[in-house]
Amino acid sequence: MPSQPRELRLASRPDGAFEAANWEIAESDVPEPADGEFLVDVTHISVNPAMRGWMEDKPSYVPPAELGEVFPAGGVGRVRASRHPRFADGDLVFGAFGLREVALSSGRGLLIIDPDAAPPETWIGPLGDTGLPAYFGLLEVGAMEAGDTVVVSAAAGAVGGIAGQIARIKGGRAIGIAGGPEKCRHVVEELGFEAAIDYKSESVSERLRELTGDHGVDVYFDNVGGQILDDVLINLAFGARVVICGAISQYDTTGTWRGPANYWQLLVKRARMEGFLVLDFAKKFPAARAEMLNWIADGSLMPSGEVVDGSLEDFPAALRRIFDGANVGKLILRI
Amino acid sequence: MPSQPRELRLASRPDGAFEAANWEIAESDVPEPADGEFLVDVTHISVNPAMRGWMEDKPSYVPPAELGEVFPAGGVGRVRASRHPRFADGDLVFGAFGLREVALSSGRGLLIIDPDAAPPETWIGPLGDTGLPAYFGLLEVGAMEAGDTVVVSAAAGAVGGIAGQIARIKGGRAIGIAGGPEKCRHVVEELGFEAAIDYKSESVSERLRELTGDHGVDVYFDNVGGQILDDVLINLAFGARVVICGAISQYDTTGTWRGPANYWQLLVKRARMEGFLVLDFAKKFPAARAEMLNWIADGSLMPSGEVVDGSLEDFPAALRRIFDGANVGKLILRI
Repeated sequence: MPSQPRELRLASRPDGAFEAANWEIAESDVPEPADGEFLVDVTHISVNPAMRGWMEDKPSYVPPAELGEVFPAGGVGRVRASRHPRFADGDLVFGAFGLREVALSSGRGLLIIDPDAAPPETWIGPLGDTGLPAYFGLLEVGAMEAGDTVVVSAAAGAVGGIAGQIARIKGGRAIGIAGGPEKCRHVVEELGFEAAIDYKSESVSERLRELTGDHGVDVYFDNVGGQILDDVLINLAFGARVVICGAISQYDTTGTWRGPANYWQLLVKRARMEGFLVLDFAKKFPAARAEMLNWIADGSLMPSGEVVDGSLEDFPAALRRIFDGANVGKLILRI
Repeated sequence: MPSQPRELRLASRPDGAFEAANWEIAESDVPEPADGEFLVDVTHISVNPAMRGWMEDKPSYVPPAELGEVFPAGGVGRVRASRHPRFADGDLVFGAFGLREVALSSGRGLLIIDPDAAPPETWIGPLGDTGLPAYFGLLEVGAMEAGDTVVVSAAAGAVGGIAGQIARIKGGRAIGIAGGPEKCRHVVEELGFEAAIDYKSESVSERLRELTGDHGVDVYFDNVGGQILDDVLINLAFGARVVICGAISQYDTTGTWRGPANYWQLLVKRARMEGFLVLDFAKKFPAARAEMLNWIADGSLMPSGEVVDGSLEDFPAALRRIFDGANVGKLILRI
């Protein structure tokens, strides 16, 4: 419990690829909880690719992070100095604390997690930031059904790895797209996808045609955008659903993004492309978490991820690992 | 009734813009109807922008037109030499006869039309090729509801003009996008759109922001693709529906189409983009025609269009008029 806790603030907006110098470390005083408040010692920080978008001063689904302010982040921490009736000292809580070592909270939007059911990294990942978008994107937005051919890009990534596993559990054919033989091996051997396409060494379009034949792709869970989105669009099945969850190939682009030239296939195949925000499904989170805890308990869902030990200063390098394609599964910075 | 009827065949595929030389005229013998067949003297040919796509040897929603074969086309004609129990000599029929003066038919897929209810050009347009896509695209795919802000591109065109009128009739705000002051005047004064944006002289994106404010566009009925699609995407309302009906700005493109760079707004606004083929709604055609006949009868739906008198040789020039933006409403070639 630091006497002079630190925080990481956005110092400047990136011009193309982001750098460590876009953030600055700062010290803050320990806040004094009022009635109905408490402190949280942050222990785990969720590192996710969407954070790249929050650095931009562009209209998006969340307001841009403000220059000079603490950068937003989700994570897990431990309650202390509680003056709140429902949060006791020592409780583990999952919420949006920002990149800070100590947070003041009224409890709003926080979930008390049970470390006996799953460790903090599983609550952040499969039961939180990564599992919930995978679950609702695939099953609600993508309306996936048993027998569907499901393609997932960034399949070795945090969200993609869960999406493909849920597709398998729900009786679909899961085909992953990932970069490099090691990630492809992970996707098939450890996550149980039926097949994986290495976009760095194979033609995604040709391999999809081989793998899905005349039928094509019923559900595409897109985390990347760019060329791969076009490669999948040209292989859609009739009535296909394209779920827009991310566009990691485009986030570092300065100027105009690359749009999907093959969007016309939406007409050819009577298909739809749809975006979503997981918070729209918040009322269904408890039921989804219960179902996923069962899958984790019976071994059908593997909570894949990577925990990096470090301090706040290590956050930019951790985020860079995702954009360099260096990580597998959910990345968490443990303070 | 020509003794040596003629037909127009696809002679070559265009490289960029099409030319009259891409078709060739040919004579054919008058076919002899067998039992259950009859002849049709074609009197009206539907000229529509989708025909440009049929000239390409690319996978699309219909097989490409074959070189050396009669080019596909819909139209109206009169039955003669009938040996079919349900089609009598003199009946007017609406169907896909191809670019020919005399067609042999088994009656399959043909609709007997009532010239007292509406003239042939209305059956081809508002009650056929243009009205049905407008009706089902807007109401079923776009799920338009009263109070929605509806934007229609190519609003002075055959499908767009009907789509905007249906939006108005169903209690929506209809905003049209069209090229030039005369088309914009037509859209507002004659078709009853609330407003029109002249994409040739105005910034579509800025004007949409002025007209739709913080709310944005609930339904976009897209006939054009390209820059205008991007301009509308950046102005979507939450939960918006983008209906892909056409992409006339792209049909003449050689090589790669321009994809919508702002497709990311589908995520930002939890919106969807969806294509459709009107034939998927064939079971509902009679009910839609009945509703539209009522609107035409009570004067709320204006069957806007243009009839060009000519012969088969005039077809390429007629199709060119659409791509030059020279026509208003449904274009029909009367033989």
